[in-house]
Amino acid sequence: MLDSWHDGPAKSAVVEFVGRVLESVPPEERVAVFDNDGTLWCEKPAYIQLDFLVRRIAEQVAAEPGLADKQPYTAAAAGDLSWFGDAVTKHYNGDDSDLKVLAAAVLSANATITTDEHAARVNAFFADARHPVLDRPYTACGYTPMVELLLYLESSGFTNYIVSGGGRDFMRPVTTMMYGIPPERVIGSSVGLIYQNGELLTTAQPEFLNDGPVKPVRIWSRVGRRPIFAAGNSNGDIEMLQYTTAGSRPSLALLIHHDDADREFAYDAGAERALDLAVSHGWTRTSMRDDWRTVFSG
Amino acid sequence: MLDSWHDGPAKSAVVEFVGRVLESVPPEERVAVFDNDGTLWCEKPAYIQLDFLVRRIAEQVAAEPGLADKQPYTAAAAGDLSWFGDAVTKHYNGDDSDLKVLAAAVLSANATITTDEHAARVNAFFADARHPVLDRPYTACGYTPMVELLLYLESSGFTNYIVSGGGRDFMRPVTTMMYGIPPERVIGSSVGLIYQNGELLTTAQPEFLNDGPVKPVRIWSRVGRRPIFAAGNSNGDIEMLQYTTAGSRPSLALLIHHDDADREFAYDAGAERALDLAVSHGWTRTSMRDDWRTVFSG
Repeated sequence: MLDSWHDGPAKSAVVEFVGRVLESVPPEERVAVFDNDGTLWCEKPAYIQLDFLVRRIAEQVAAEPGLADKQPYTAAAAGDLSWFGDAVTKHYNGDDSDLKVLAAAVLSANATITTDEHAARVNAFFADARHPVLDRPYTACGYTPMVELLLYLESSGFTNYIVSGGGRDFMRPVTTMMYGIPPERVIGSSVGLIYQNGELLTTAQPEFLNDGPVKPVRIWSRVGRRPIFAAGNSNGDIEMLQYTTAGSRPSLALLIHHDDADREFAYDAGAERALDLAVSHGWTRTSMRDDWRTVFSG
Repeated sequence: MLDSWHDGPAKSAVVEFVGRVLESVPPEERVAVFDNDGTLWCEKPAYIQLDFLVRRIAEQVAAEPGLADKQPYTAAAAGDLSWFGDAVTKHYNGDDSDLKVLAAAVLSANATITTDEHAARVNAFFADARHPVLDRPYTACGYTPMVELLLYLESSGFTNYIVSGGGRDFMRPVTTMMYGIPPERVIGSSVGLIYQNGELLTTAQPEFLNDGPVKPVRIWSRVGRRPIFAAGNSNGDIEMLQYTTAGSRPSLALLIHHDDADREFAYDAGAERALDLAVSHGWTRTSMRDDWRTVFSG
């Protein structure tokens, strides 16, 4: 167990925590929650879901060439991923104009199809899409030490949930295979669905953006219990980590630090507050460089 | 198994269905969904949750007597439950004025408390509230044949969910004890929650009214699979029953008919369309009078 973790403070903290849980927490209360992007799988140079969406937007342009006159279709058709990255950068600099254009296109990219058809599109994407830098299938971009941690917790009677800002129905088709987490334990962002003649159809209406303070709310909605273990890597995970450690049970908050430019990526952007809070709140920080023997397998 | 069911077409249909499922449906696809009010427990002469809410509203009047000048506080303080029933009747007759007044009071009755405090109020209610007609604790108002059915399905590898128009967090504290269904498998109506300093607080904002076409949407959101078994008793369950039987797997839709004035209540109001559709769609109708050997235990 945890063979891909170096012996060190992070591994010790986890093992010691699980020991206390086995002594004092009944199995039904052993709820563990994991962010996905940057916590269970790689999120750089761009969210995996963004690749899925840009490919779909490019398909839309191919089917309706007139779309190419406007963004983000122009960029998608040209394979210009920098436009998408710039939209997010502009947002963080206070200019939301491109982000709004992007959001409208993203929300409508997979609208008015059944949930089965949506799953088929996701499966088709994962069947052949590869990570542009790591040169491996996206389905092999899960972090080996975190998959081991999921198994370790599960073998200790925990029930693991994914609680991600990513799309709930984008993750579901692959989480069982990658993490052993079935669809009913995937909590994520979503669009509204409508029921029609025995089928559920996607819409372009946002339902939940599962980030920040929304994470604990959705955890309660879905699980009805306060977790005792939480893992995250960014500012969007702060409230989930706080909520997890504010209960009366033994608890552990794990923050992944992306400091391994050789084997993955090194970046603190979007995680600055979380990294600071880890120190003041006694969260367990994990250095990918120092704590992980391997990052990816296979 | 199913000892409190008479041998007959309803019991045979269930047993035959489970036999086919065991042969052809993998365990992870064996999802069963149950309405609660009128399907798993008694809903007459009024929803159990209404009693909980009226008692709370009376408490609010006791703490702030000026409230008694307006409805529904006047009625709650006087113990006048007919006002509440009339508000619903008026609604069905096209006059929503009283229902709006009622809804606002209901939504705010348990607002701005933590989820733990809310659970404590629910537990306090169930600890001593009794059914006004059946003269038994509300927690003993579950239908014995349905509890047996839950166990029978579970022992056949099914995972059971409650999918109710009732309040999610009103049901959760008692569903494990009454039905063996844990909080994470209770889908119901809800108010919005807000995260604050490690706690989740209730609000007076409606989030989901889990009824009619909303039921299949929330099933997908929570479970990520189409059920293969569904049980309900009213028009609000129609879409859930349709969704369940519209898939390619073997499936069964069970409709409870309240036709037992001696042992429970006899009524079709609010179920007329569902009872008609049961015939045209081949759903299995269960007569409480003819199919159930016992209704309540203990």
